[in-house]
Amino acid sequence: MTTLPSTQVDTFPNPQPEIDYTIRMTIPEFTCLCPLTGQPDFATIRIAYTPDEQCVELKSLKLYLWSYRDEGAFHEAVTNQILDDIVAAISPRKLTVIGDFWVRGGIETVVEVNYEK
Amino acid sequence: MTTLPSTQVDTFPNPQPEIDYTIRMTIPEFTCLCPLTGQPDFATIRIAYTPDEQCVELKSLKLYLWSYRDEGAFHEAVTNQILDDIVAAISPRKLTVIGDFWVRGGIETVVEVNYEK
Amino acid sequence: MTTLPSTQVDTFPNPQPEIDYTIRMTIPEFTCLCPLTGQPDFATIRIAYTPDEQCVELKSLKLYLWSYRDEGAFHEAVTNQILDDIVAAISPRKLTVIGDFWVRGGIETVVEVNYEK
Amino acid sequence: MTTLPSTQVDTFPNPQPEIDYTIRMTIPEFTCLCPLTGQPDFATIRIAYTPDEQCVELKSLKLYLWSYRDEGAFHEAVTNQILDDIVAAISPRKLTVIGDFWVRGGIETVVEVNYEK
Amino acid sequence: MTTLPSTQVDTFPNPQPEIDYTIRMTIPEFTCLCPLTGQPDFATIRIAYTPDEQCVELKSLKLYLWSYRDEGAFHEAVTNQILDDIVAAISPRKLTVIGDFWVRGGIETVVEVNYEK
Amino acid sequence: MTTLPSTQVDTFPNPQPEIDYTIRMTIPEFTCLCPLTGQPDFATIRIAYTPDEQCVELKSLKLYLWSYRDEGAFHEAVTNQILDDIVAAISPRKLTVIGDFWVRGGIETVVEVNYEK
Amino acid sequence: MTTLPSTQVDTFPNPQPEIDYTIRMTIPEFTCLCPLTGQPDFATIRIAYTPDEQCVELKSLKLYLWSYRDEGAFHEAVTNQILDDIVAAISPRKLTVIGDFWVRGGIETVVEVNYEK
Amino acid sequence: MTTLPSTQVDTFPNPQPEIDYTIRMTIPEFTCLCPLTGQPDFATIRIAYTPDEQCVELKSLKLYLWSYRDEGAFHEAVTNQILDDIVAAISPRKLTVIGDFWVRGGIETVVEVNYEK
Amino acid sequence: MTTLPSTQVDTFPNPQPEIDYTIRMTIPEFTCLCPLTGQPDFATIRIAYTPDEQCVELKSLKLYLWSYRDEGAFHEAVTNQILDDIVAAISPRKLTVIGDFWVRGGIETVVEVNYEK
Amino acid sequence: MTTLPSTQVDTFPNPQPEIDYTIRMTIPEFTCLCPLTGQPDFATIRIAYTPDEQCVELKSLKLYLWSYRDEGAFHEAVTNQILDDIVAAISPRKLTVIGDFWVRGGIETVVEVNYEK
Repeated sequence: MTTLPSTQVDTFPNPQPEIDYTIRMTIPEFTCLCPLTGQPDFATIRIAYTPDEQCVELKSLKLYLWSYRDEGAFHEAVTNQILDDIVAAISPRKLTVIGDFWVRGGIETVVEVNYEK
Repeated sequence: MTTLPSTQVDTFPNPQPEIDYTIRMTIPEFTCLCPLTGQPDFATIRIAYTPDEQCVELKSLKLYLWSYRDEGAFHEAVTNQILDDIVAAISPRKLTVIGDFWVRGGIETVVEVNYEK
Repeated sequence: MTTLPSTQVDTFPNPQPEIDYTIRMTIPEFTCLCPLTGQPDFATIRIAYTPDEQCVELKSLKLYLWSYRDEGAFHEAVTNQILDDIVAAISPRKLTVIGDFWVRGGIETVVEVNYEK
Repeated sequence: MTTLPSTQVDTFPNPQPEIDYTIRMTIPEFTCLCPLTGQPDFATIRIAYTPDEQCVELKSLKLYLWSYRDEGAFHEAVTNQILDDIVAAISPRKLTVIGDFWVRGGIETVVEVNYEK
Repeated sequence: MTTLPSTQVDTFPNPQPEIDYTIRMTIPEFTCLCPLTGQPDFATIRIAYTPDEQCVELKSLKLYLWSYRDEGAFHEAVTNQILDDIVAAISPRKLTVIGDFWVRGGIETVVEVNYEK
Repeated sequence: MTTLPSTQVDTFPNPQPEIDYTIRMTIPEFTCLCPLTGQPDFATIRIAYTPDEQCVELKSLKLYLWSYRDEGAFHEAVTNQILDDIVAAISPRKLTVIGDFWVRGGIETVVEVNYEK
Repeated sequence: MTTLPSTQVDTFPNPQPEIDYTIRMTIPEFTCLCPLTGQPDFATIRIAYTPDEQCVELKSLKLYLWSYRDEGAFHEAVTNQILDDIVAAISPRKLTVIGDFWVRGGIETVVEVNYEK
Repeated sequence: MTTLPSTQVDTFPNPQPEIDYTIRMTIPEFTCLCPLTGQPDFATIRIAYTPDEQCVELKSLKLYLWSYRDEGAFHEAVTNQILDDIVAAISPRKLTVIGDFWVRGGIETVVEVNYEK
Repeated sequence: MTTLPSTQVDTFPNPQPEIDYTIRMTIPEFTCLCPLTGQPDFATIRIAYTPDEQCVELKSLKLYLWSYRDEGAFHEAVTNQILDDIVAAISPRKLTVIGDFWVRGGIETVVEVNYEK
Repeated sequence: MTTLPSTQVDTFPNPQPEIDYTIRMTIPEFTCLCPLTGQPDFATIRIAYTPDEQCVELKSLKLYLWSYRDEGAFHEAVTNQILDDIVAAISPRKLTVIGDFWVRGGIETVVEVNYEK
C-alpha cells in the first residue's frame, strides 16, 4: 500500500506483561489533507491495544499524529498506515485503529482496522 | 425484485487488500418519493462494508444516492437495491445497508440488509 | 390466552424473498385501557421481523394498533396478541414485539416477545 | 370559540397565598381525536400557574384531561380550552398552557397560551 | 428580492382571536436545490407565529414546502420567501421563520427572519 | 444470608406460558436505610424475568419494595433478598435483579444478581 | 400555612459578606409521604441563595431534609416550608427553593418559591 | 493588535436588505498553530451577523478560515482578527464571532467578540 | 475573609483593548481539601472575564489552581479567593468565577461570584 | 511491576456466597501525580467483581484510592496495582479494573485490566 511519512512512535516497557490487558486512546485532534484536492480533512483517531513487551509513549504518539498535518492521505490508507506504524513500534498482541472522518459531501466515513499477533 | 434506476458507483483500488477491515458511511441526506402517493420520503442511509479488491468512491456514491430523488421506491425495495448496486460495483467481502426512514403515520421504519461473499 | 379484538393487518409481497433481512418499526403512539380500572395506558410498540413471502403494510398496521384504543388489555397479553396477529398475517421467518409501557405506580414495564419459524 | 366537553377540575386552598410562587405540571399522556379525520392525536400538555386562593387538585386534573380521549379537537382550540377551564376553576394570578403535539404530515406543532389576571 | 415559486398556504379561522398566543411548527423534511450547482440542499424549517384572524392549515403548509423540492434557492432568500408567503396568507401579529441548513463545505448555516405587524 | 422483612409479592397467571418471553420493570423510587449509620440510601431497582406459570402483579410489587423504607439493608444483601422473594413468589424461568445505588463517599455501587431455573 | 416538623438548619459566617454572590445546592435524594394516602413521594430539591451574614451548613441541611422522610406533606406546602425554615435560619438576601416531584398519575409537578429581603 | 494573514472573504448582495435578520454559521473544522510552541490548536468557530448590503459567501469563508492552518495565532487575537476581516468585507449591522478552543493543559477556552455598526 | 495560599497568575497584554469582549475558561480538574475533615474535594471551576489591559496567561492559571491541591478550603471561600486573585492580577472590566463542587452527603454545591470594575 | 504505596482495603463477608453475582463501583474522584513531571492526573476508576468469600468495604476503598493523591503513578501501572491490591484483599472470583484518565496532550487514555480466579 501507499507509504505515508511518519515520525517515530516511542515506547516504554509494559509494567505488567504477565497478563493481557487493554489500553484505549482517543485523539480527536487529527487533521491531514485530501490527496486529490488538497483540502483539509479532520478525524478522531481511536486506538486500542493489548501490549506485549512495550507500550506506546503518549507524547511521541501525539507528535507522530501531527506529522500527517501537511500530508495528503486517503481515509482508508491513513488508518491502515497508523496501524502498521504502531505494530512496527510495539509489536502488540492485539491492535485496533479507527479513523472517524468528518462529513464530506454529506457523507461521514469511519474506517476500522484490526490486527492480532 | 423491482428494478430501480441508478447511476454508476465508482471505485478505487483497496489500499490494503491483504487484511479484512471495515468502512462505515452515514448519509443523512437521502430522499425519494412514495410510489403510491408521490409524496417525498426522507431517510438516513448507513453503509458498512469490508472491501475486497475495490473501495467505494465517495463522490460517485453521493451522486448515485441523489439519483433516487425523483424516483418512487418502497422502503424495503430501495434498501435492497442500494445493496445490490454496491455489490455489483465493488464485490465486497461483506456489506450491510440500513435505511432509516422518517415517521409516516406515526410509524418509523428501519430496513437492514446484509450480504456476505 | 385472552383473545383481544383486532382489525386486519394487510400485507404486500416481499420485494427480496431470496435473502434474510430485517424490518424494524417503532410506534410511540399506542394507547389502550387498563382492564381492571379502565384507566388509559400508554406505550411505545417496537416491531422487528424478517419477512418470508409477505411484508406488513404500514397504513393497516397503524389502523390495527388504533383498534386497541378502547380495549382493556394487560401489558403481557397485549404484547403477545400483537405478535400472534402479525404471525397470522405474514408468517415471518423471525419476529420480535416489544411493548414499552409508561410509568404506573412508579414502575415502568417492558414486555418483549420473540418468535422464530 | 368552539366549546369542548370537560369534567370538573377540583381545587384545594393555596397553602401560602401571601406570596407569588409557581407550580408547573407536565402531562405527557394526552390524546384526543382529529375533528376532520377522526384519527388519534397525541400531545404532551405543560401547565404553569401562580395560584391565588386555590390550587389545582392533581387527580381531578388527570380525569379532566382524560375527558378529551374521545373528543375531536383542533390543536389550537384544545389548548385554549384547557386554559379557559383552569381559569374558571382556580382563577390563578398567572397561567400558561402549552400543547406539544406529535408529528403529523412531517410537521410537529406546539401551541402556547398565556393568561394574566 | 428574488421571487420563488410557491403553492397556496391555506388558512382556517383563529379559534381564539381575543388574545395573543403562539403556534410553533417544526418541519425537518425540507429540501431544495443549490441555484449555482444544482446540488440538493436539506434544512429543518422552524415557524412560530401569533395568529390574528387566520391560522395556517397544516396540510397546505406541507404541500407549500414541498414546492421548493425542484427549485434553486439561496439559504438567505428561501427563508425570507417563506416568511413573505406566510405573511401574505394569514397576516399574523408576529412571525419568525428559521432555516437550519445542513453542513456544506464544513459549515452549518442558520438563517432567522422576524416579522411584526 | 441475612433475612430482610418483606410483604407478599402477588401474582397472576401468565397469559402466554407456551413460549419464553421477557418482562422488564424499572423502579427508580427505592429507598432503605444504611444498617451501620441509619442514613437513608436511594437506589433504582431493575427487574427482568421470563415467567413460567405466574407473573408479578405490579401494585403488590410496589408495596413490597416500599416495605424496605424503614429497614437497614446492605446493598449486596438487599439485592439478593429481592431476587429470593420474587423467586419464591413466581418461580420464574429466568430472573435478574439489579440494584443501582446512589453515590456514597464519592462511590456509586451497582449490584447485579441472576437466577435461572 | 400547615406547620411541618423540622430539625435545625445550622449556619456558618459568610466568608465574603461585602458582595452579593450565589450558592446553589441540588439534593436529588428527598422523600416524604403523601398526606392523603401515606404513599412515599420522591423529589429533587434545588436551593439557590445570596447569603447575608450567614451561610447554610451542608451536613445540617442534609439532616434537616431527612426529617421529612416520615412526614405527610403536600408538594406546595413542603416547598414553602423549606423556604421559610432557611429564611429563619440564615436571613438571606435572596432565596429560591424548587421542589421537582416525580410522576404521580402520569403528572410531574414542580413547585418554585422565591424570596427577597 | 497583531495582524494575521488572511485571504479575501467574498460577498454577494443581501436578498432582503429592507429588514434586519440573522445568519449564523458554525465551523467546527478550524485549526491554527500556537505562536509560542508551534503546536496545533483546534477550535470551533461560530459566526452570527445581521447583513446590511452584503452577505458572506460560504466557499470563500471556508478558504479564508483555512488560511490560518499554518499561522501562529493566540486565541484572543485570532478571534478578534476574524471579526475585523468580516467587518471589512461586508460591513454588517451586527456581528458576533466566538472561538471555542479545545482543552490545553486541562483548560478549555472560549473567546467571544461582538460588533455593532 | 480567610487568606488562601496562591502562586502568581501571569498576564499578557490584551490584543484588542479598544472593545469589550469575553474570555471563558473551564477547568474541570480542580481539587482541594475539606478544612474540617481533611477529605479531598473536587470541583469544576468556570471563569469568564472581559479583559482591560491584561489577559490571564493559561499555563500560570493552571499552576495557580494546582496550588489549592494540598490546601483546606471551604467551597464559598475558595471561589471568592480565586476571584480576588484574578482581580489583583489583571484588573478586568468584568469577572465571574463559578465553583461547581461534586456531591457531598447527597448534595451538589455551586458557588458563583461576580465582579464588575 | 512497580510497587505503589497502598493503605488496606477492608472486607466484609459475602452475604450470598452460594451464587455468582456482580458488584460494580464507579469512583469519578481519583487523582494521582505524573511520575515524570509531577503534574496532577485525574481519572474515573471503575471496578466490577464477583465476590467469593469477601466483599470490598466502601469506606476503606475510598481511603485506599485517596492514598494515590500524592504518589507518582503511570496510567498503566496504577490500574494494574489497584487490581492487584483488590485481589490480595478479597480474592474475588472475577475482577475488572478500568482507569479512565482525562485528556493529556489532546489524548484521552483508558486502561482496562481483567482477572479471573
